Amino acid sequence: MLTPELIREAHARIESFVHRTPLIQSGSFNEAAGRHVFFKCENLQRAGAFKIRGAMNKLLSLTNEERRRGVAAFSSGNHAQAVALAARETGTRAVIAMPSDAPRMKIAATRGYGAEVVFYDRQRDDREAFARGIAERESLVLVPPYDDYLVMAGQGTCALELLEDVPHLDALVMPCGGGGLFAGASTAAKAVNAKVRCFPVEAETANDTEQSFRRGERVCIPPPPTIADGMRNQAPGALTFPILQRNAEDVLTVSDDLIVEALRFLLFRCKLLVEPTGAVGAAAALFGKLPRNIQRVGVIISGGNVDPETLARLLPATSDDHASSMLK
Amino acid sequence: MLTPELIREAHARIESFVHRTPLIQSGSFNEAAGRHVFFKCENLQRAGAFKIRGAMNKLLSLTNEERRRGVAAFSSGNHAQAVALAARETGTRAVIAMPSDAPRMKIAATRGYGAEVVFYDRQRDDREAFARGIAERESLVLVPPYDDYLVMAGQGTCALELLEDVPHLDALVMPCGGGGLFAGASTAAKAVNAKVRCFPVEAETANDTEQSFRRGERVCIPPPPTIADGMRNQAPGALTFPILQRNAEDVLTVSDDLIVEALRFLLFRCKLLVEPTGAVGAAAALFGKLPRNIQRVGVIISGGNVDPETLARLLPATSDDHASSMLK
Repeated sequence: MLTPELIREAHARIESFVHRTPLIQSGSFNEAAGRHVFFKCENLQRAGAFKIRGAMNKLLSLTNEERRRGVAAFSSGNHAQAVALAARETGTRAVIAMPSDAPRMKIAATRGYGAEVVFYDRQRDDREAFARGIAERESLVLVPPYDDYLVMAGQGTCALELLEDVPHLDALVMPCGGGGLFAGASTAAKAVNAKVRCFPVEAETANDTEQSFRRGERVCIPPPPTIADGMRNQAPGALTFPILQRNAEDVLTVSDDLIVEALRFLLFRCKLLVEPTGAVGAAAALFGKLPRNIQRVGVIISGGNVDPETLARLLPATSDDHASSMLK
Repeated sequence: MLTPELIREAHARIESFVHRTPLIQSGSFNEAAGRHVFFKCENLQRAGAFKIRGAMNKLLSLTNEERRRGVAAFSSGNHAQAVALAARETGTRAVIAMPSDAPRMKIAATRGYGAEVVFYDRQRDDREAFARGIAERESLVLVPPYDDYLVMAGQGTCALELLEDVPHLDALVMPCGGGGLFAGASTAAKAVNAKVRCFPVEAETANDTEQSFRRGERVCIPPPPTIADGMRNQAPGALTFPILQRNAEDVLTVSDDLIVEALRFLLFRCKLLVEPTGAVGAAAALFGKLPRNIQRVGVIISGGNVDPETLARLLPATSDDHASSMLK
């Protein structure tokens, strides 16, 4: 079970292995958003995303015998790098199953940490079954990207730090893919301050969690087309979803266009490189998706891994940018 | 005179108006540089650069009568925005002389803070005489970009914070334009730890300070062509240069190509948007310009104001990048 205690234990376990990322405020963002926003900058985390927190917690919790055999993981990117880095730090073998169309930089970084990469076809293969097959054949421990209490507890540590720095928040907003970050972070936040309203945010076209939340049961959608490549999962997790149902105020969505505008705002005004998935929470805060009476908001910037080619495509600022026109 | 006391007073005066910027470390940067580097991230400062520190200190030190009349400044960009913002914060009128080819975003931001902008021709006009003319005609107080002890003291506060966070540094490295940042920061650093070796860094083609340092007197060069637009001054300051002569271990230079590679490294690996001028110190640390026995280095990232158009031009990563080939 995921408890605040499990998250505090995770924090003690991993804190010498991860950065305590800075909390950054921007006057121009606050002005444009009409609220006071505190960014928890997990794009400045090791391996460029919060994922190292969960991976590190999981790997440090393995038995010596398990660690000797090694681990396997499936991921479109950041989880892959995180497991690869955590494996290197603990002297463990890692085999990572990645979609063949994953960003070039993420594949290179995963290999750079010393992991073995095997590819699956995102349209055809069931990535979980694919990875399970490898794990079973080679006696590896599977490190799930979200549906695992130790992984969720690790991810939750970023909210623990955020609430330690700023306990009085009206809301906590963050991207939601499979729901591991939300499960951990909302549990941690509510343990510190029960009044914090927690909002997972999805890309509009990848709204498996929104649909599931409305329906009251997990809904599976076709492989979603969105620029937010960390949100291409087709359903919320079996273990994360009940926690989300309990802790989420509502599930918000933003269009890919607004995600890109938020990414540009964070880059040019706040000087932070944020990947599309990582900018989804900021987009919700910037473009009026939150209830009006929410004034002090923690926004988790989940990651910053963007290919140069992808960024180059996103840069050209059109003169009719919603964001630009809001600025003086 | 510039004293450590003047810098401490400046810090007390301005600290509620500026961010205490985060100190950021990057494992991949350290690995590539072969040293332990602490980035003082003034690109995350208000108005996107350290310049607000000096401008704020100067404006808060004006008499009420001076503040009523208003201020004038000349600047290729960041100083302009800083004076404009400081004037807004203190309820003062600001008139800013900018070169007609200054980055579009910097002009817009300066106006956005409520300042009046007047243009001069960088190739033809003497910008200082131009600004002095305006100041005299309209009874404004001129806020020099560097040759002023209150401005230098303000800039020095960023090193005071850096050394408070990490007192045991072998060296402090930073970009050097007119020398205001170097004068203030080296004075502050040596007051905390006299053993810190201080290195100003210039773009190779804008090496007025290097030439002056070698010659032992101020040298004036033709308008220098460099991508580092904050370094296009033609000579070090009359007041900053003697301080630099006393405090500088050596003056380092880096080519525009290495500046761009460092900028890309900071962007894609460290997730920080840094302007070319701001990346010059990082370039020196990354590409072997520092003495080998220097292990713990503070690097001041001076600013992050880059036009989207400029960034788009700098992005295309060539496969033979020096930086990329150094990375696993």
